[in-house]
Amino acid sequence: MSQTVTAAMIVIGDEILSGRTKDRNVGHLAEILTAVGIDLTEVRIVADDAAAIGEAVNALRARNTYVFTSGGIGPTHDDITAEAVAAALGLPCAVDAAADALLAEHYARRGIDYTEARRRMARMPRGATHIANPVSAAPGFRIANVHVMAGVPAIFQAMLDAVLPTLRTGARLLSETVPCPFPEGTIGAPLAAIQTAHPDTIIGSYPKYDDGRFWTEIVVRSRDGAALATARAAVEAMVAGLSQTD
Amino acid sequence: MSQTVTAAMIVIGDEILSGRTKDRNVGHLAEILTAVGIDLTEVRIVADDAAAIGEAVNALRARNTYVFTSGGIGPTHDDITAEAVAAALGLPCAVDAAADALLAEHYARRGIDYTEARRRMARMPRGATHIANPVSAAPGFRIANVHVMAGVPAIFQAMLDAVLPTLRTGARLLSETVPCPFPEGTIGAPLAAIQTAHPDTIIGSYPKYDDGRFWTEIVVRSRDGAALATARAAVEAMVAGLSQTD
Repeated sequence: MSQTVTAAMIVIGDEILSGRTKDRNVGHLAEILTAVGIDLTEVRIVADDAAAIGEAVNALRARNTYVFTSGGIGPTHDDITAEAVAAALGLPCAVDAAADALLAEHYARRGIDYTEARRRMARMPRGATHIANPVSAAPGFRIANVHVMAGVPAIFQAMLDAVLPTLRTGARLLSETVPCPFPEGTIGAPLAAIQTAHPDTIIGSYPKYDDGRFWTEIVVRSRDGAALATARAAVEAMVAGLSQTD
Repeated sequence: MSQTVTAAMIVIGDEILSGRTKDRNVGHLAEILTAVGIDLTEVRIVADDAAAIGEAVNALRARNTYVFTSGGIGPTHDDITAEAVAAALGLPCAVDAAADALLAEHYARRGIDYTEARRRMARMPRGATHIANPVSAAPGFRIANVHVMAGVPAIFQAMLDAVLPTLRTGARLLSETVPCPFPEGTIGAPLAAIQTAHPDTIIGSYPKYDDGRFWTEIVVRSRDGAALATARAAVEAMVAGLSQTD
């Protein structure tokens, strides 16, 4: 089995914690990372608060290959992610000359004032490299193993597309789903026995509830295709056996 | 200003981190808590892993009035929340007699086997009190300031309804939204000045991007209605002034 590559995500924004805005970036990042064989190990949603951001950055970057943040990199006073990440890494945060030139040119071409507020978006920790923003020019950035990206979903997704080719990817965790017409309580014991007998797989059981009826999605995952197929067959045989005796 | 009441949430489940399932409980809890004046300060999404669950529980319960968890309390081998929370609190985890009787009666009435797997759902840390589950009987529980609830949204919501009347609530954080036709870069400096002049409010600025055009939602929040009205008027005057000079 090849070495695993892990990631964590930090969603930054009071508006998510108040319920005003429903996050759409966690699910997108989770799907994309899974597809390329990077395991998302943890997500934290924190407020627009430098200490909270810094604590999350330092806790998660130490134990993951990569960290991704979303939110707080715009031009207003509540956009503090760049400063907070710089402080967490013990780096100065200042206007990046290349980002400054990029933004000045972007706004000049559109006849829009390049205000001091907009210039805040050129600030990043010293040594950061840009993450291209094809939507509104203001770059995200990467510093150490931390990728700082926008909160607006269209921009977050475009930035992630730009970042993906730069990431080390792992062996993809393969996944197969077996629908099961029985509730979890019926299959709990035999499914646990199958999990024990197939240690190279991770077997998950997800209760579903539709129209007053419980059923279960059983998901078998593994980085080893043969192990996956064997465990899946065992799960299917269990479901078929229960169906016959029902 | 009355004392604030804070909460944190822990979403437990590999299926959320893999992107297979999109969480729907964070947004619901955030909205409900905001409505009753409890500040949601942080959310963590962690894997079906006892150490990860325990770390999150202990970090968050120490610094919040309440903690809410969702997920991992079903009857299958990957449902480890009760054990993990008990371990985090240094308590034994065992079958609760009242929960055991409730479940036995629930399944007997329906002519369904009360299997050993189903009996797992009666396990909870010693001293826990039940959180009623009107959907499928298996109770959630409260131990210390931690509320352990189901991951299935219909059940999570029903459990939250049961818990709400037991919570200490705070002064509601009032909120008003001012739509602004200008992008954040245009309003950044004057908005920062308004925030500085109105320290009893929290002014947030949320970039919106529709059909290639940027605009902004400005949200003014405060526990003090008069302070909120004054700050809101200042924001509206700024937007009106910019519109006249445009």
